[in-house]
Amino acid sequence: MPPTVPVPPAPEADGHGPHGYSLPLSPSGRAAMLTPPPWHFSGEITMVDYRVDPDAAARFLPPGLTLGPDPGAAAAVFATWQWCSDSGAELTDPSRSQFSEFLILLGCAYRDEAMARCPYAWVDQAVPLVRGWVQGMPKQYGAVHQTRHGLPGRAGSRRQENGLFAGALSVHGRRVVEASVTLTAPAPNPPRLHTVPLVHSLVTPPWTTPDPRPAPLSASHVTDVEFADIWTGTAQLRFLDTPDDDFATLAPVEVGAGHVFSYAETLVSGRELPTGEG
Amino acid sequence: MPPTVPVPPAPEADGHGPHGYSLPLSPSGRAAMLTPPPWHFSGEITMVDYRVDPDAAARFLPPGLTLGPDPGAAAAVFATWQWCSDSGAELTDPSRSQFSEFLILLGCAYRDEAMARCPYAWVDQAVPLVRGWVQGMPKQYGAVHQTRHGLPGRAGSRRQENGLFAGALSVHGRRVVEASVTLTAPAPNPPRLHTVPLVHSLVTPPWTTPDPRPAPLSASHVTDVEFADIWTGTAQLRFLDTPDDDFATLAPVEVGAGHVFSYAETLVSGRELPTGEG
Amino acid sequence: MPPTVPVPPAPEADGHGPHGYSLPLSPSGRAAMLTPPPWHFSGEITMVDYRVDPDAAARFLPPGLTLGPDPGAAAAVFATWQWCSDSGAELTDPSRSQFSEFLILLGCAYRDEAMARCPYAWVDQAVPLVRGWVQGMPKQYGAVHQTRHGLPGRAGSRRQENGLFAGALSVHGRRVVEASVTLTAPAPNPPRLHTVPLVHSLVTPPWTTPDPRPAPLSASHVTDVEFADIWTGTAQLRFLDTPDDDFATLAPVEVGAGHVFSYAETLVSGRELPTGEG
Amino acid sequence: MPPTVPVPPAPEADGHGPHGYSLPLSPSGRAAMLTPPPWHFSGEITMVDYRVDPDAAARFLPPGLTLGPDPGAAAAVFATWQWCSDSGAELTDPSRSQFSEFLILLGCAYRDEAMARCPYAWVDQAVPLVRGWVQGMPKQYGAVHQTRHGLPGRAGSRRQENGLFAGALSVHGRRVVEASVTLTAPAPNPPRLHTVPLVHSLVTPPWTTPDPRPAPLSASHVTDVEFADIWTGTAQLRFLDTPDDDFATLAPVEVGAGHVFSYAETLVSGRELPTGEG
Repeated sequence: MPPTVPVPPAPEADGHGPHGYSLPLSPSGRAAMLTPPPWHFSGEITMVDYRVDPDAAARFLPPGLTLGPDPGAAAAVFATWQWCSDSGAELTDPSRSQFSEFLILLGCAYRDEAMARCPYAWVDQAVPLVRGWVQGMPKQYGAVHQTRHGLPGRAGSRRQENGLFAGALSVHGRRVVEASVTLTAPAPNPPRLHTVPLVHSLVTPPWTTPDPRPAPLSASHVTDVEFADIWTGTAQLRFLDTPDDDFATLAPVEVGAGHVFSYAETLVSGRELPTGEG
Repeated sequence: MPPTVPVPPAPEADGHGPHGYSLPLSPSGRAAMLTPPPWHFSGEITMVDYRVDPDAAARFLPPGLTLGPDPGAAAAVFATWQWCSDSGAELTDPSRSQFSEFLILLGCAYRDEAMARCPYAWVDQAVPLVRGWVQGMPKQYGAVHQTRHGLPGRAGSRRQENGLFAGALSVHGRRVVEASVTLTAPAPNPPRLHTVPLVHSLVTPPWTTPDPRPAPLSASHVTDVEFADIWTGTAQLRFLDTPDDDFATLAPVEVGAGHVFSYAETLVSGRELPTGEG
Repeated sequence: MPPTVPVPPAPEADGHGPHGYSLPLSPSGRAAMLTPPPWHFSGEITMVDYRVDPDAAARFLPPGLTLGPDPGAAAAVFATWQWCSDSGAELTDPSRSQFSEFLILLGCAYRDEAMARCPYAWVDQAVPLVRGWVQGMPKQYGAVHQTRHGLPGRAGSRRQENGLFAGALSVHGRRVVEASVTLTAPAPNPPRLHTVPLVHSLVTPPWTTPDPRPAPLSASHVTDVEFADIWTGTAQLRFLDTPDDDFATLAPVEVGAGHVFSYAETLVSGRELPTGEG
Repeated sequence: MPPTVPVPPAPEADGHGPHGYSLPLSPSGRAAMLTPPPWHFSGEITMVDYRVDPDAAARFLPPGLTLGPDPGAAAAVFATWQWCSDSGAELTDPSRSQFSEFLILLGCAYRDEAMARCPYAWVDQAVPLVRGWVQGMPKQYGAVHQTRHGLPGRAGSRRQENGLFAGALSVHGRRVVEASVTLTAPAPNPPRLHTVPLVHSLVTPPWTTPDPRPAPLSASHVTDVEFADIWTGTAQLRFLDTPDDDFATLAPVEVGAGHVFSYAETLVSGRELPTGEG
């Protein structure tokens, strides 16, 4: 059977055994589950701003981060992604290049720089899940669904007045979050929490000798950011079954505006953020 | 927990026990897996015209149908759908209102009317699968993936020159079909095989006393058809692992143009087509 | 690539076009999604007896059926199946021969014969789902999980005193039913509701001209029934999110004994049950 | 809605922000996707011994490991697992406590100690996948199916003469491996490659500053090993579509005996293995 995905020339063997950007290691390095960054992402987003109890948010921030200028700012984000490596090879097989994601964002700051902390995230494919852990992004596995954008006809939703966009997250067969946005008008600017770097903790679960040092902080470094066709509207957001007691502390105390837009970025690397404890 | 989907008023009980458009029957009729038609569909389509051996196509046509004016015309269609009932209720829960589909179409005719026969179809959700069987459409379960349409950025595909749209079907963990379309230009008209009625056989597998009558032919009756943003291009189409020997006889002997477009329709009912044998 | 499943000799073409036990019809008949009966089933069962409001149960019975001698008798059944056709071919590919099922049973009677009515059932594979509809069994799609039987070690459950067997049903990402059984002793006999025929309604959703006749009743005809290693115990059963309002009327008013056993049967055909209205 | 899984008392907050064995970190530590070890596993195994080209195997071994006394010894292992943490909480929800796994084992040695290297593994659940990466075990996501063990009736397979046990792995909708074992006799001892420690490389894909040190080697430390009802027989093993070119180099050059058994172990931790390069 002919190969579907073009294969780049093999890197030279270095005489030191199997290698690769990630597991599995192999003689040519091509067996790695993860391709090395940069990774390119293109997606459709439905996002709801909301307010969380600032004390609850603070309990999710590691040393080195503060709540910043707007304590309690939060967002629930549904994203439907297509992605590829620098070679673009994944785009020839759409069973490999697509996933859906739900995440919670909390406004925060590192020193004077506004950032967002992602305390919870769920995706429905294994490659982006593991790629999240490489970055310190706490992706778990869930069933994420979102209205498709831009379809014609009576079953379609378009970015126009009264356009309805809904999202739902289920985890282990339980409905955890539901949201919807009813559009009112185009928006000149993207929602703020989607424009700041994400700051993650590079956690390595102990397996042999535990490492007593705290997990380093890392900010996402992205380029080629593109927002397109941004609309805003009224929103609903409900937390239903809770996957753990801590998650419930981040439930909305107030629901703000909803946003619907297209988005692209290239994720290049992590930038380590020194802390007093590091 | 409050219900997510608005529930219509219960139909009056008729004093004759549980009822409903389909199984499961229940006191109010609301437990039915299928809502009654009409059903509204909105989708993105990647389609490849191809030629099949006319004799092979003829062997898939039941009495009452002929190959029509263009023997051997065929198409492979990848569709990503959002759907709803007349109430629109499904649109509030995107986990219920979306599915993907792959189907083969063969050009044919009933008397002097051009139609298309669907010898094989696969979907990735149970409701549209069973709804297919109600119509005589032979939907089976498969994993269907298609490039997302209209995303910005390097991992996105847009309907523009050199836009690449790929599709893949896997059945029981085996790759059955792969296709791709590279766009060259907008097209003034939709591809012909997507504009004619589908003609199905209303097969009822025998369970108690077999019914010796041949399966009636039924043509799909659709309204509110909408095509949007049609592009055409060059195409590739490959049949790989074959789910059965008959499927392999419909493999391409020549691959024609590719098409990418948005589409909406309302499926209202079936129109029974009398045959000499009926 | 060599075929995995041995293929039986093709039936002779009958000169009347494509055929098969079910859709899809094809020249050789081998493309049919369903093989013709008999179908052989082997499974592990966790079952909880419970009592339902007899009036609620009665509202699920079509004309021709009565509640019988024990109004309100009900059971919740989790089953993990392996199945094959008469050829046994499916057993060579375990991705095709396995599914899980959850069903509700209500005690009832046809004339003087004790039977069970299945108002709701869910499976996690498409072939048994469609096969259910051929029989009039209202199978829908759900995520069904059950403790595995007979595993050694601390994470295993065995049929012995204090053995714990749990089951869970989720539908569209919502948890619908949870049950568990803690074993107390071997049982000499199988639970009654698993020993009587199932009686279904052969519903054909209208597509062309509606058929005004009531759906015929059909009793399942099974042979080669085998029960093995039956244990009984105490049980829990909870209905959580409800998929429709009618389902909630069948929630337990009292929970009885639990049962764990192995089971095999061959499902041969349906036996039509005449009713005054038929 | 009441919680299903009993929650242990919260560990005391340590005043240093969110914590946990793994991501996601949270105030109580209970949001972690992974519970800390030990993890208890109970499973059914179908395993095929085979021979691989020793040079190909050697290219998968990192510095510090040799082929050992039996160069080219390999095995293909299908496992169906139930697992739990020390609390046993997962056993109350079978949607959380079960997964299937396929892995390749290569015989090797660290100094004079016989071990097995796992160059490739696939599982069908996210928690064991990530848990694999914590250990350096290269688990990827795949669809893994195996004949169920011990079912009665014609569709069941039992550990007895001529009992047939089959396994299949699909990755991204492509069939990668198929195997089957036809039993001939009970076996006094477990297959050798299932009795030695697994040796993994603790790879951390670079994200911020790359770490130039080679990935440490770690051997799995397990206790409470239990083998039950071991049978042996004749086997078939086929590699079909290959997920990468390196995988194909581990295809069988000779197929040996097949083994079917039940197995339990407790996975406690990793034991770091010093190498000259470490």
